[in-house]
Amino acid sequence: MKKVTIQDIAKELNISFSTVARALNDHPAISEATKKLVRKTAQRLNYRQNKLASSLRSGHSNTIGIMVPSLDVSFFSSVVHGIEKIMNENGYSILLYQSNESYESEKKGIETFLNSRVAGIIASVAKETQTHEHFAEIQRRRIPLLFFDRALEALQVPSVTIDDYKGGFLATEHLIRQGYKRIVHITAGQTIGIFKERLRGYVNALKLYDLPVDKNLILYGDFSLDFGRQCVKELYQNNIPFDAVFALEDFTAMGALQQLLDYKVHVPEEVGVIGFANESFGALVTPGLSSIDQQTVHMGEAAAELFLKMLRSEDLYNNLPERIVLAPHLIARASTARRDNSKFSRQYPQESEGEQLI
Amino acid sequence: MKKVTIQDIAKELNISFSTVARALNDHPAISEATKKLVRKTAQRLNYRQNKLASSLRSGHSNTIGIMVPSLDVSFFSSVVHGIEKIMNENGYSILLYQSNESYESEKKGIETFLNSRVAGIIASVAKETQTHEHFAEIQRRRIPLLFFDRALEALQVPSVTIDDYKGGFLATEHLIRQGYKRIVHITAGQTIGIFKERLRGYVNALKLYDLPVDKNLILYGDFSLDFGRQCVKELYQNNIPFDAVFALEDFTAMGALQQLLDYKVHVPEEVGVIGFANESFGALVTPGLSSIDQQTVHMGEAAAELFLKMLRSEDLYNNLPERIVLAPHLIARASTARRDNSKFSRQYPQESEGEQLI
Repeated sequence: MKKVTIQDIAKELNISFSTVARALNDHPAISEATKKLVRKTAQRLNYRQNKLASSLRSGHSNTIGIMVPSLDVSFFSSVVHGIEKIMNENGYSILLYQSNESYESEKKGIETFLNSRVAGIIASVAKETQTHEHFAEIQRRRIPLLFFDRALEALQVPSVTIDDYKGGFLATEHLIRQGYKRIVHITAGQTIGIFKERLRGYVNALKLYDLPVDKNLILYGDFSLDFGRQCVKELYQNNIPFDAVFALEDFTAMGALQQLLDYKVHVPEEVGVIGFANESFGALVTPGLSSIDQQTVHMGEAAAELFLKMLRSEDLYNNLPERIVLAPHLIARASTARRDNSKFSRQYPQESEGEQLI
Repeated sequence: MKKVTIQDIAKELNISFSTVARALNDHPAISEATKKLVRKTAQRLNYRQNKLASSLRSGHSNTIGIMVPSLDVSFFSSVVHGIEKIMNENGYSILLYQSNESYESEKKGIETFLNSRVAGIIASVAKETQTHEHFAEIQRRRIPLLFFDRALEALQVPSVTIDDYKGGFLATEHLIRQGYKRIVHITAGQTIGIFKERLRGYVNALKLYDLPVDKNLILYGDFSLDFGRQCVKELYQNNIPFDAVFALEDFTAMGALQQLLDYKVHVPEEVGVIGFANESFGALVTPGLSSIDQQTVHMGEAAAELFLKMLRSEDLYNNLPERIVLAPHLIARASTARRDNSKFSRQYPQESEGEQLI
């Protein structure tokens, strides 16, 4: 006898999968009448909700695995909260695995998720990862897979990402409009697509505003507090003049900011600093750190909604994957407040895209 | 035929469980000779390492579930790193579940772990949790359970915690020695044992230094940035004089600090502020936030070591549980630097316990 699923109940009642799942999980958003109807139908169709038994039998579960590079980074923990919220409402539980940016650990994590027979995997790819065989294995098993923030383009997998080009452009344009002219960009090795895009945004903003692209001002390396400090030290040691730093992410920006303050450089008067990712500490430090917000909760919710669509889909991976790209927002704080913003907003056209001054 | 286990190989070779597990997982710390010997013995005894197959058959896996209140709090993510390190070295994978301080979510998480047939669970209890039935269920199934930081005393379960009494004492004693006299303590409801202990440390430090315990200076409530701000507002609105704040944890301390700065109060000259947990942002803010360090990585490692002992134990839960209590450390930063510490260290006896000035 074929096992009765939530889909069968949904079809029978002509209501959505999500409503049935939430009704069976006694979700407060579902009316008592609907809950009663769903429970009655479930009983009539002989639906069994015993999760342990059903997951052991079918090899599926109501558990979703989320793979993140690191939960120390508030960007990731914030996206995870967004995903959790929606998935919990729909009757799914979330298990997390940290790759710690290691390819080996990422492979191990996928194995662990598969052994735990998760119903699907939502992943952001580790810094080290160069191949995609371990992710392709998930697809081969017909288990839903979705990427967020860091995707492997080579795989035909749905994804939710940020427009990193636009983020890089916004950060650089903001510095230019604040009057900074010699803008340093700290970036990482070029294996991760998102950092390449941020760099492209930086270069194109300079060009658009007729500023020269000076190779001495583009520093390649890693991302960390220490690396940010080191970059500022090297700029001074090599006598390279600069009046602003746009770092690929906030911890690196914070390192640069700390080193500038140690050198008694006035921020933002002499040098402006902007990061990327709007980490939670940015609002707590002095001066407040300007950054690019990646709409983490919105990203988490969008990822969860798209993933629920996959879980319900009959022809998983048969169509071209849906790829959602979200727009980043500028968060201007004291670390780039060289000009009086009230004057400044009159000086520039209103239609400037995505600008948000707080 | 009885399934051959890692224990059988360990017994056969008279080496430790951990060495066998690491050898089978090709850990770099194990010599090639040992690896070869272990592999040969495993083959001879017909040991099968296929994890999926073996976990499906036995109902056990090499996966450990860690339940944390919130991974947004760097204390928890840091302890998790410590546990991960040791467990990975011993051939285990870690899956994480966030309770988000909710009792219902915690129950759901335990169910999810059990459905995923984890080999054991390491947990820190949610703020909301008042009963222990869901944890007792883990014990009934003879699955290893260990508490870290927040334990349920009623259960006979091994635990690794911090001496919170001593932490509260150290924080308060530090403020007194810096010359502060009217010290506010912000604490939470009294259901969580660790906060009760911190309060007890505060009260006893005041008594020991012959300072009055003023009930107006003990503020009960929640813990959050907003609550810290609110406490400072209320102290001023009610005209209660104070010259220092010891908050139960760092986010609350940070809220108090921000509100003081908004009021143009000089920190540390007029009012000193100290938190608890040594969150990573404390070193980044200005003035740097003094705090009590809970030796997170050490706690994680101690928890993992004790847990490995449980995993290997034959008579799980038959003996009285081992309870490890770690000593906290004072981290003195600018937010309490009222006195010149160089003069200060001559003023007080050297043998002061646990003091560490940076």
